[in-house]
Amino acid sequence: MILFVDMDEVFADTYNAHIVRYNEEFNENLTVMDCMGREVWQCVPEERQQSVHLHARTEGFFSDLEPIKDSKEVLKELSLKYDVFVASAAMQFPNSLIEKSDWLDQHYPFIHWKNRILCGSKHILNGDILIDDRSYNLENFNGRKILFTSPHNINTTGFERADNWLEIADKLL
Amino acid sequence: MILFVDMDEVFADTYNAHIVRYNEEFNENLTVMDCMGREVWQCVPEERQQSVHLHARTEGFFSDLEPIKDSKEVLKELSLKYDVFVASAAMQFPNSLIEKSDWLDQHYPFIHWKNRILCGSKHILNGDILIDDRSYNLENFNGRKILFTSPHNINTTGFERADNWLEIADKLL
Repeated sequence: MILFVDMDEVFADTYNAHIVRYNEEFNENLTVMDCMGREVWQCVPEERQQSVHLHARTEGFFSDLEPIKDSKEVLKELSLKYDVFVASAAMQFPNSLIEKSDWLDQHYPFIHWKNRILCGSKHILNGDILIDDRSYNLENFNGRKILFTSPHNINTTGFERADNWLEIADKLL
Repeated sequence: MILFVDMDEVFADTYNAHIVRYNEEFNENLTVMDCMGREVWQCVPEERQQSVHLHARTEGFFSDLEPIKDSKEVLKELSLKYDVFVASAAMQFPNSLIEKSDWLDQHYPFIHWKNRILCGSKHILNGDILIDDRSYNLENFNGRKILFTSPHNINTTGFERADNWLEIADKLL
């Protein structure tokens, strides 16, 4: 069984990294609770939105991400039962490619390079299960689709949902 | 119709780049004709094989590749008729990721970042046609498989074959 797992906002905490960088840059106190149901850039004044958009093009942004709670342990267990592939739509940000590869080596060394996919869109993936925080990625996938909860998608309906990695473990292990 | 196209030895001339680097390094005159039916590293004395293996980990190796004859023109035409995706098994060489992305921007800017895939293995691809120089990539693909001729695969049998990009044009345009 082939299991695809998205990276950003599923096991790499991009969302919180945007907030931390924004707060540092503008000396603000934005919190995740302020942002529920929206993207981080949508929660800041319009004249600062471009600055948030630029985070993903900033050297080190993807290197510094925190792993999401319980993802290491559960992904390690999942790797024993499934053919687990990381599938990240990273091609928009060429600077992210090496950072993502190095980050996986550092935090998830059990995910072999053969099982890593950096792509631009995900409808070309052929497998059994996809865990992703973006409905547009899940919509075009042929297998079982699991929406991983992220602050931006709390109001999205119509998908099987997992709120955290222990719920993923319950569903798949 | 989704058409996947491998990069190295299909439209990026990795094979010849290995020969050029080897000749420069050891002041030799190895030619493509000397290597027919084999990988470049198999055509050099054993004590120099490791040096050839290291090319792909050398900064600039993938930046400097020559586009293969007629590939630009034919890929551009194909992009009008098919949903063309570049699919390169690049994850083994993390240094190649940004170089491949930049090289595509430089030589094939009409291939959008959404249509670029850097992966470790290709059996996870879901589409209609795959053009590749490696039989092990074609074997696990579900659609039409076209083996693109490279010096190393001239003795491989059992696949529809294209010797050059004009033959690809004849087949697919």
